[in-house]
Amino acid sequence: MDATPSTPLRAPGGFPVVGIIGGGQLARMCAGPAIELGITLAVLAEEADGSAAQAVRWAPVGDYRDPATVLAFARECDVITFDHEHVPAPVLAALADAGIPMHPSPAALVYAQDKLAMRARLGELGIPCPRWQAAQSAEDVAAFGAEVGWPVIAKVPTGGYDGKGVLVIDGPADVAEWLERGPVLLEERVDFVRELAVLIARSPSGQAAAWPVVETIQQDGICVEVQAPAEGLADELAAEATLAGLRLAGELAVTGVLAVEIFQTLDGGFVVNELAMRPHNSGHWSMDGAVTGQFEQHLRAVLDLPLGAPTPLAPVTVMANVLGGDYPQLYPAYRHLLARDPGLRMHMYGKGVRPGRKIGHVNVVGADRAQLSERARHAADYLSGVITE
Amino acid sequence: MDATPSTPLRAPGGFPVVGIIGGGQLARMCAGPAIELGITLAVLAEEADGSAAQAVRWAPVGDYRDPATVLAFARECDVITFDHEHVPAPVLAALADAGIPMHPSPAALVYAQDKLAMRARLGELGIPCPRWQAAQSAEDVAAFGAEVGWPVIAKVPTGGYDGKGVLVIDGPADVAEWLERGPVLLEERVDFVRELAVLIARSPSGQAAAWPVVETIQQDGICVEVQAPAEGLADELAAEATLAGLRLAGELAVTGVLAVEIFQTLDGGFVVNELAMRPHNSGHWSMDGAVTGQFEQHLRAVLDLPLGAPTPLAPVTVMANVLGGDYPQLYPAYRHLLARDPGLRMHMYGKGVRPGRKIGHVNVVGADRAQLSERARHAADYLSGVITE
Repeated sequence: MDATPSTPLRAPGGFPVVGIIGGGQLARMCAGPAIELGITLAVLAEEADGSAAQAVRWAPVGDYRDPATVLAFARECDVITFDHEHVPAPVLAALADAGIPMHPSPAALVYAQDKLAMRARLGELGIPCPRWQAAQSAEDVAAFGAEVGWPVIAKVPTGGYDGKGVLVIDGPADVAEWLERGPVLLEERVDFVRELAVLIARSPSGQAAAWPVVETIQQDGICVEVQAPAEGLADELAAEATLAGLRLAGELAVTGVLAVEIFQTLDGGFVVNELAMRPHNSGHWSMDGAVTGQFEQHLRAVLDLPLGAPTPLAPVTVMANVLGGDYPQLYPAYRHLLARDPGLRMHMYGKGVRPGRKIGHVNVVGADRAQLSERARHAADYLSGVITE
Repeated sequence: MDATPSTPLRAPGGFPVVGIIGGGQLARMCAGPAIELGITLAVLAEEADGSAAQAVRWAPVGDYRDPATVLAFARECDVITFDHEHVPAPVLAALADAGIPMHPSPAALVYAQDKLAMRARLGELGIPCPRWQAAQSAEDVAAFGAEVGWPVIAKVPTGGYDGKGVLVIDGPADVAEWLERGPVLLEERVDFVRELAVLIARSPSGQAAAWPVVETIQQDGICVEVQAPAEGLADELAAEATLAGLRLAGELAVTGVLAVEIFQTLDGGFVVNELAMRPHNSGHWSMDGAVTGQFEQHLRAVLDLPLGAPTPLAPVTVMANVLGGDYPQLYPAYRHLLARDPGLRMHMYGKGVRPGRKIGHVNVVGADRAQLSERARHAADYLSGVITE
């Protein structure tokens, strides 16, 4: 790693440096807000021309699994935060031993890294969850399935994302390989009406702010659309879910953005599906649809700056993810879209096209939900090559 | 100049590279929009840790007055645009000879660089202007003053900004030194109601978009506040001024953002005061107050991408400039402000504090003009140290 920036990282006036471990699109989308806040963003990147490395002045390439590398990077920064949940515990411990401020802290982050720890802690807190069990063996799997009914959801406790590491299983044989590597989280399959997400930011001082509860629409385990706020959500459920998110943020001592993915259940209640402690796909709408977007808010939170207003700017914002298709030269399609709809808010990630890969998203802000959804989905589908006009 | 970027500048997918000559805050504020658009922004900077150099991956330091330096920089980019009007004609000619696309073009830029050329051209086009004259001698000055009445406004034709190069004179003696260096632009002092600005973006294809006409409030020749839209502006005057701006953009073949500073006159009409062919202080409000802000729009225009909607997001946006005061450590005051008003949209320029220097601005978006103005001005004054609570 090129551990020393060639020019001073700190801007004049006492404005600090935030270092992000990981150079994906979440780190990239922090770069614009960092510029406007006047702070400096540095990125420990996987590759010199990756998504976030394109967007910041200092993005040394280094292995986030190597304590010495991460420590050398962190010593140039005032606070460290994360693009993903995959930084190993020994690396986090090395940073903590060196007195490096980290937000979220390793003690909080464990609940986003380890789904078994998360389920156990949420259970203690009385937060609604699906029935679950840590299965060590085929017998455990069989017993759990017999108890809650097949099929059952099986999850690798650590390292999964975007539907990877999650299976719908009909019996122990489906997770035989996973069981060889360690315990597997089993969850009952919840009959849900739809998927929602609660997005919270919390600062080390304990200030918290919540954006409106959103609906997330998935295809093949990948989020394709988010509507903010969720359509026709009962005030009571919105309040309960938001309060659960705020309570979780406090109880787990989360610092930065916390995303709580929930299922709205048939009885009008909810159960928590997943947690993430970082800016999250379900909050991308806020970049254009709220006074303070999630990337700016995450930076404020990890710096213990006062949080900005999460107030929406319009009745509805719709976000659609752009997934890679078969055609790598996006720019002509992109041009066409900008001409077709001058109100589109495009966000491209500087990533090469691979089928199914998240390479950008588009926001549309307004009042007519169906029309906004059509516009956002059209743009995403056109860039993906799913539609050609 | 370090003329070769260490990693490829172009993101995958055919997204281009925009190069900006000059590394001030206008270039800096293009960086965030460039990231989201997915394009690459490169900056030819005055200093390695300057305002824009802090915000982009590749910002070689080089002299914008040296043709070889600028050419080497420009060859890494797909199109060149400008942070300021001071690039000398021979440098522009060298780029043109090398086939480098420039927006605005040198032929257009001359009207922003040379106020005498601007006055002559605007006169030809029948755009309302103050009475003016190019004075070569003390006799010319005396004759013009006798004709239009003293005092008279005297301007250095090239190189001025923020009130520098402008004087209110009572006689030829006040501009004796200027006259030794070349002709001086004289203008009658216009009795005006207030100052307005028309902001237009125009692309090489000829598409144009106009933001609402704003009011700019100056102190000591420096803009301190902008209200968008201008309060109580008659529809007819707004339409006439906007049409004049659009016509100017077309007739002068401006590409990128064009700012037309105008005086609203006592008779309900207007005269043009100044032109700028770049994002402009009078358009900073649009970063938070419009669907498409001026920095994004400038990038779209110079790339000949379709322009975004200039539609306001709220009834009123107020911008206040933060001018440097006596105290260099801004961050504690900044923290205080964010806590006091979670709706503030701060934009800091990464610049060291010098008294009177523009070091940032703040936008506030909403409906109550007086309250928005109070909030924006309070924030700016507090950061400037003009007020202490």
